[in-house]
Amino acid sequence: MKKHNFSAGPAILPASVLQKAGNAVHDLNGIGLSILEISHRSPEFVEILDRSVQLVKDLYQLSDDYAVLFLTGGASSQFFMSAMNLLDPSAKAAYLDTGSWSSKAIKEAKLFGDIEVLASSKDKNYNYIPKGFDVPEDISYLHLTSNNTIFGTQYHSLPDTKAPLVCDMSSDIFSRNIDVDRYGLIYAGAQKNMGPAGTTLVIVRKDLLGKVNREIPTMLNYETHIKKNSSFNTPPVYPIFVSMLTLEWVAEMGGLDAMEKHNREKAQLMYDAIDRNPLFEGVAEKEDRSWMNATFVMKYENLEKEFLDDCNAAGISGVKGHRSVGGFRASIYNAMPIDSIKVLIDVMDDFAQTHA
Amino acid sequence: MKKHNFSAGPAILPASVLQKAGNAVHDLNGIGLSILEISHRSPEFVEILDRSVQLVKDLYQLSDDYAVLFLTGGASSQFFMSAMNLLDPSAKAAYLDTGSWSSKAIKEAKLFGDIEVLASSKDKNYNYIPKGFDVPEDISYLHLTSNNTIFGTQYHSLPDTKAPLVCDMSSDIFSRNIDVDRYGLIYAGAQKNMGPAGTTLVIVRKDLLGKVNREIPTMLNYETHIKKNSSFNTPPVYPIFVSMLTLEWVAEMGGLDAMEKHNREKAQLMYDAIDRNPLFEGVAEKEDRSWMNATFVMKYENLEKEFLDDCNAAGISGVKGHRSVGGFRASIYNAMPIDSIKVLIDVMDDFAQTHA
Repeated sequence: MKKHNFSAGPAILPASVLQKAGNAVHDLNGIGLSILEISHRSPEFVEILDRSVQLVKDLYQLSDDYAVLFLTGGASSQFFMSAMNLLDPSAKAAYLDTGSWSSKAIKEAKLFGDIEVLASSKDKNYNYIPKGFDVPEDISYLHLTSNNTIFGTQYHSLPDTKAPLVCDMSSDIFSRNIDVDRYGLIYAGAQKNMGPAGTTLVIVRKDLLGKVNREIPTMLNYETHIKKNSSFNTPPVYPIFVSMLTLEWVAEMGGLDAMEKHNREKAQLMYDAIDRNPLFEGVAEKEDRSWMNATFVMKYENLEKEFLDDCNAAGISGVKGHRSVGGFRASIYNAMPIDSIKVLIDVMDDFAQTHA
Repeated sequence: MKKHNFSAGPAILPASVLQKAGNAVHDLNGIGLSILEISHRSPEFVEILDRSVQLVKDLYQLSDDYAVLFLTGGASSQFFMSAMNLLDPSAKAAYLDTGSWSSKAIKEAKLFGDIEVLASSKDKNYNYIPKGFDVPEDISYLHLTSNNTIFGTQYHSLPDTKAPLVCDMSSDIFSRNIDVDRYGLIYAGAQKNMGPAGTTLVIVRKDLLGKVNREIPTMLNYETHIKKNSSFNTPPVYPIFVSMLTLEWVAEMGGLDAMEKHNREKAQLMYDAIDRNPLFEGVAEKEDRSWMNATFVMKYENLEKEFLDDCNAAGISGVKGHRSVGGFRASIYNAMPIDSIKVLIDVMDDFAQTHA
């Protein structure tokens, strides 16, 4: 029986994508070869890569000012690559600290220039998005993490600055409309909303590159990958292929407008269930709640194990919360069907009735 | 009809591996989830990763002095990471230049210390392995590329030095026995002998680490990945899973002894066919011929296209040579069955008869 997959990442993919992804391992479109054994220089893969790039451009309506890259190394590698490529040793960048990933990004960037942390929500275990701070004018960029997977918070408006934004969008990429012109660099590990683990999307404004005074190893220079269309070396063929299938699914479903509408509805349903249930309590400040990861705790900690057992019995997987927050986390990415959310809510409601 | 896949990489995988790899995309061992959508912290994936590491240790009979890592970024990232981690800014390393990949490794290493190139076969378009050079004693390591995919050469004995070897083994990893104690660092992109594109194997002697005087970004420090068992960030789940399946296949076939025996036989068959055929000529010096990539040219260039058409008609894929060498290249990695080689040889023999 197929599980209801609430995993925070690697995460649920659309059923139709998994079907096509499995078939292509046996044979890619009847060519007599598996997708796993074709050359990255073959016409078949060049088409897959080109189509993946085009889907990203179309979904975000990117102008030719931006390059779209499929790299590896995860967001964790972008923490240092972004600073290495965009921040001159003599210059300053501003960062916002909204969780574990932001603070890792800050740590790595400090190796490359002057880093000013404008605001942090660490004082309340990152359960809110800081507001009301001033952004200095003399910065190369402002870095933020748009959605905080562990803590269940998300930016619903952008800070006031003219500086280009550098954004770790790993856990809400392709989940809603964004004002793309505000961004100088967007990066995202694929394994939440875009595909399986193993590739990292980078969208970068080309005019920001080539301006820092340091030697960059070839593989760490965005310009290398722009020149070679993400194929300077062998790219991660299969993760890119499955990302292409997932992006095709997003487009077929109606693009970012449709994703945003669907995700808002799903999040509303989930948070309504948490708020009305006498046994559960949301973790994040209401105005900063994530549409992707709903974090909540049990008011009576001794019942946690029993609730997880009930979830398990109902075929629900991956709702145990991250150790930094405890409790539960329902990750309800693009591919999460509303029916699975209803199954979880039923278990929550039944549990409250049983323990009334 | 299944093609005879002579691609240089990503390359042929065993049929049984592809079968299991495709099934797991639909459902992993009946758990109700695809391998593409499980958490990298799940017990299922932790077991896959641990088993992959153990298979590498068993196949190479590694002592506890070595760590086994599954990273990303390909051999191209190891070109700079190896020097960044092993070469102090005040120290010297020696390199051997046997092809495009060696020379890229040299270029990247020069950013991190004093690099002495001991020998090069560039004078003859890399058609041999240099010999008869002296290795200085004051070096941190000696770097070599064990098999040169593009040019079809391979080391069949190791240079005389007490320094640890750092070796790009991308195209002959797990293809034969090696004297593993001579190596300080072995790295290999998966996509030739180990699995699909998307993960990079690193085997490193732990006592060589932590000795250089420079700040290394967290993700570029081997010690990070040793401490976190290749899961500091989300590893490339599926490429590692398929690598595990491929390593299981190597073990089931009899391990490195069996691979070496089989690969010698296949290479002998291939080179005998080239040498006896009046129309073809081997590219590499005979004593340095690769058991993995047999490069050969047509004596009459105007017949090349016709020969490729014949290959195509026989269901043979991927034998066109690299542009740096021209002609043809038969990549006959571990998973290449002897029957496919016989099909290619038949086409070569028929072609020679037709054009006698």
